[in-house]
Amino acid sequence: MEILIKNALILTMMEKPGGGLEPPFRGDMVIREDRIAYAGPEAPPGAFDKVISGEKRLVMPGLINAHGHAAMSLFRGYADDMDLMSWLKKKIWPIEAKLRPQDVYHGACLAMLEMIKSGTTAFADMYFHMERVAQAAVEAGLRASLCEGLTSLPGERDKLPLAVDFALNWRGQGGGLITAMLGPHAPYTCPPLYLEKVLKQAALHDLPLHIHLAETKEEVAQILEAYGRRPARLMAEIGLFDAPHVLAAHGVFIAEEEMPLLASGKVSVAHNPRSNMKLASGIAPVSGLLQAGVNVALGTDSACSNNNLDMFQELRAAALLAKLKDSDPKALPAAQALKLATVNGAQALALPDVGTLSPGMKADMILLDLGKPHFAPDPQRDIISHLVYAASGADVETVIVNGRLLMENRRLPHLDEEKILYEAKESMDFLCG
Amino acid sequence: MEILIKNALILTMMEKPGGGLEPPFRGDMVIREDRIAYAGPEAPPGAFDKVISGEKRLVMPGLINAHGHAAMSLFRGYADDMDLMSWLKKKIWPIEAKLRPQDVYHGACLAMLEMIKSGTTAFADMYFHMERVAQAAVEAGLRASLCEGLTSLPGERDKLPLAVDFALNWRGQGGGLITAMLGPHAPYTCPPLYLEKVLKQAALHDLPLHIHLAETKEEVAQILEAYGRRPARLMAEIGLFDAPHVLAAHGVFIAEEEMPLLASGKVSVAHNPRSNMKLASGIAPVSGLLQAGVNVALGTDSACSNNNLDMFQELRAAALLAKLKDSDPKALPAAQALKLATVNGAQALALPDVGTLSPGMKADMILLDLGKPHFAPDPQRDIISHLVYAASGADVETVIVNGRLLMENRRLPHLDEEKILYEAKESMDFLCG
Repeated sequence: MEILIKNALILTMMEKPGGGLEPPFRGDMVIREDRIAYAGPEAPPGAFDKVISGEKRLVMPGLINAHGHAAMSLFRGYADDMDLMSWLKKKIWPIEAKLRPQDVYHGACLAMLEMIKSGTTAFADMYFHMERVAQAAVEAGLRASLCEGLTSLPGERDKLPLAVDFALNWRGQGGGLITAMLGPHAPYTCPPLYLEKVLKQAALHDLPLHIHLAETKEEVAQILEAYGRRPARLMAEIGLFDAPHVLAAHGVFIAEEEMPLLASGKVSVAHNPRSNMKLASGIAPVSGLLQAGVNVALGTDSACSNNNLDMFQELRAAALLAKLKDSDPKALPAAQALKLATVNGAQALALPDVGTLSPGMKADMILLDLGKPHFAPDPQRDIISHLVYAASGADVETVIVNGRLLMENRRLPHLDEEKILYEAKESMDFLCG
Repeated sequence: MEILIKNALILTMMEKPGGGLEPPFRGDMVIREDRIAYAGPEAPPGAFDKVISGEKRLVMPGLINAHGHAAMSLFRGYADDMDLMSWLKKKIWPIEAKLRPQDVYHGACLAMLEMIKSGTTAFADMYFHMERVAQAAVEAGLRASLCEGLTSLPGERDKLPLAVDFALNWRGQGGGLITAMLGPHAPYTCPPLYLEKVLKQAALHDLPLHIHLAETKEEVAQILEAYGRRPARLMAEIGLFDAPHVLAAHGVFIAEEEMPLLASGKVSVAHNPRSNMKLASGIAPVSGLLQAGVNVALGTDSACSNNNLDMFQELRAAALLAKLKDSDPKALPAAQALKLATVNGAQALALPDVGTLSPGMKADMILLDLGKPHFAPDPQRDIISHLVYAASGADVETVIVNGRLLMENRRLPHLDEEKILYEAKESMDFLCG
C-alpha cells in the first residue's frame, strides 16, 4: 500500500540542529507499507494506491498517551466529585470486583474508539484481563504498550507469572503493534522484596517497567513512615531506575532532590495533569523534571478520573498548569508541550521509530482540519501555538497507524462504532445491575 | 415561527424545590417566536414550521460567556508564553494601536463564529470601536452585553461620553439581543475620582457596570501602595458594589475578608480559569466566593490569552482548578460548575429570562450529539458529569438564540464562514505588515 498526502502543512516534530522545532512546511508525504518514504516539498511521481488532499490540512505525528487504563472508560461519569478513598472503596473497587473479561474488552474497545477519534496513535496501559485489551488494540489497529497490573498485598495470589506470560505471548503481536511491559502497580502496593522479584523477571525477559509513582501526598507519607524515605528515593535504592526502561506515572510528589535519581535517560515520567487536578492530588513538577534531564511524557489516566481521552486537551492542561505551578507564563512553552505528547511519548513507550515524521520512521500520523475558526486568523504561522492552546481531538480528520488508515474524514472503516457503544452500555448495565 | 424539538433528553438547569438540579428527562420542547412555549413529556399537537429530531440529542440552555474581548480573536497565537509586561508592551499594545474599526469588526465576527460553533448563546464584551462589535453581534444573532472599555490615565482623552452614547444608542438593538454596560477597565487604570464619575453616569442611565478586578498580584500591590487597601475593598468604599448591577472579571485576588463586600446580590464575578493559568496569574477563590454568596459566572477572556472560546473546556477547567485550589476533589462539583456557565451567567449579564429552559423563558438553547464515544457508556444517566468533564464545543450540533436557528447540524445558514476567516486573516496581515 502506498499513500500520498499532497500539499499539506507538515509538522515533523524534528529538532533543528541549533535546537527548537523545525518550522512547519508545505509539501507532500509518501507512506510505503508501514513507513514514511518521503516528506518534503514535492513527492517524486509514483503509482499511489491512495491520494489524500492536504489542502487546509495539517499533518503531524499521532499523539502518544503514555499512561491510562483503557477498560475503565466503562466507568466514565460513574463516580465524580468524591474523596479518593470513598471513590475507591464505595465505587471503583466494588464495581471492579464484578468485571468480567468481556467487560474489560468492551471498555477497552470504547477507549480505543475515542482515542482514534481524538488523534491518539499509541498508548500505554496497565490493568487486568490484559489479553482482552490486547485483542481490542489489535482490532483497533493502535500501537499499544500493555502490562498486567501487579500488586502484592496480604493474602493476594501473585500474578507475576501470569503477567510475564501475557508479556511474552503478546509482544510483537498485531504486526508488531503490541509491545509489553511488566506493571508493578505502585510502591505502596508492591513492597521492596516483591519489586525486586519483578525487576529480576524484567531483566530476564528484557521487559520495560510501568509503575505509578509518587501520585499523592498520602503515598509519600505512607512510604516515608514505612521505609524512612520518599517513594522515588526508595525506588532508586531498590534499583528500579537502573532497569533498562522505566515508565513512571504521575510523579506529582517527586522532590527536587530526587529528580537526579530519575535522570539516567532510562526513566520516563508520564504526567497526567487533568487526573491529578480532578482527584485534587496536586501538580507534577514538570519544569523541574525536564530541567533535571528526565524524559517527561503525557497521559490521560483513565476516563474515570479525567473524563475523556483527548490528548489535545491534556496537552493544553499540561502547558497551562506548568505556568501556574511555576508562577511563570513562560513555563512549558507550546513547542515543548507538544514534544511531551509526541517525541517524549515515543521514548516513554520504548518506540524508537515513532514520534517524528521523517523518512524511515513508522507511518503514525494524523491530519487536522485547519479550516476551524479556532485556528484562525493564521493557521500556518501559529500552528504550534494553536495545537497546544486551541485545538481539540475533534479537529482530527484522518488517522494513520503503521501505514494503515484507521480513520478518514472521521469515519472508521474497520470498526463498528454503534456496536462498541452498545456493548459498553450493556457491560455497564450488567455491572450496575 | 414555531419549532418542535421531538423526544430529546432535556436538561432544564432548573433547581429542584429541595435544592440540586432537576434531573434530565426525555421529552419535547416547543419554541414559539422568541420564547419557550412548552417543555415536558409530550408537546400538544400543533402546526410547527420546523421539527427537529431529539433522538440521541441533549437540549440544554446555551452557554453564557461572562467576560471576553471578542475582537482580540485576531491575536490568537500571536503572542504566547511571555511575561505579562513583555506581552503587553512588545506585542499587544503596539498592534492594538494600529487597529482600525474594520479590524475590530473582523475579529469580532471570527469570535462569534467560534462562539456559535461551540455552543455559546450570550456573551459580555469590553473593548473599543464597540459599535463594530455590536454590528457583528446583530449579524451573528447572539445575545451580547457590550461596553466600551474606559481608562483614565495621564494625557488620555476621556471616552466616558462616547461610552454612554454607545450604550444608549445600542441597548435594545437587534430585537433586544443587545444590552449595554459601562466598562471602567480596572481599579489600576481608573482612579477613584474617575470611577465616581462613571458610577454617576451608570446610575443616571440605569446601566450595569463591567470591570476587571483583582486579576494579578501586581494589581493588588499597586492599589495597596496607592490607596492603603486591596482592590475589592477600595471598590466597595467608592460605592461600586452599591450600584444596581456589577460584573467584575477575574477576582483572582479577592481576599476572604473582602468577599462579604461583594455578596449584596448585585455583584457577579466572572471567573476566567484558563486565562488566569496561561498568564500565570493564579486561581480565583471560586468556592469561597460562592460560599460567601457571591454570584460566580464563567468567561473565556480573549482568544489571545486562552486561546479558544470553547465554554465547555472552560467549564472543565473551572471544575478541575477548584479541586486543586481547595485540595478537595469534592470542590465545585459538576452540577454547580454547570450553573456558572448558564444560570449564574444569565444573572451576571442581567438577563432575567435566560439561563434555564422553562415555558416563558427566552429560547436560547443548544443541542448536543450524544452519540460521541466520550459520552459513553451512559449518556443519559451521567449527562451532567459528561457535560463538565468530557464534552467539548465540537459536540454542539444546533444552536438557537431568541427562537432563531443560528446553527443546524453545524451549518450556519446566515453567516459566510469562508468570508469571516478570510477577512480575519486579511486584517491580521495588515496589522502585522
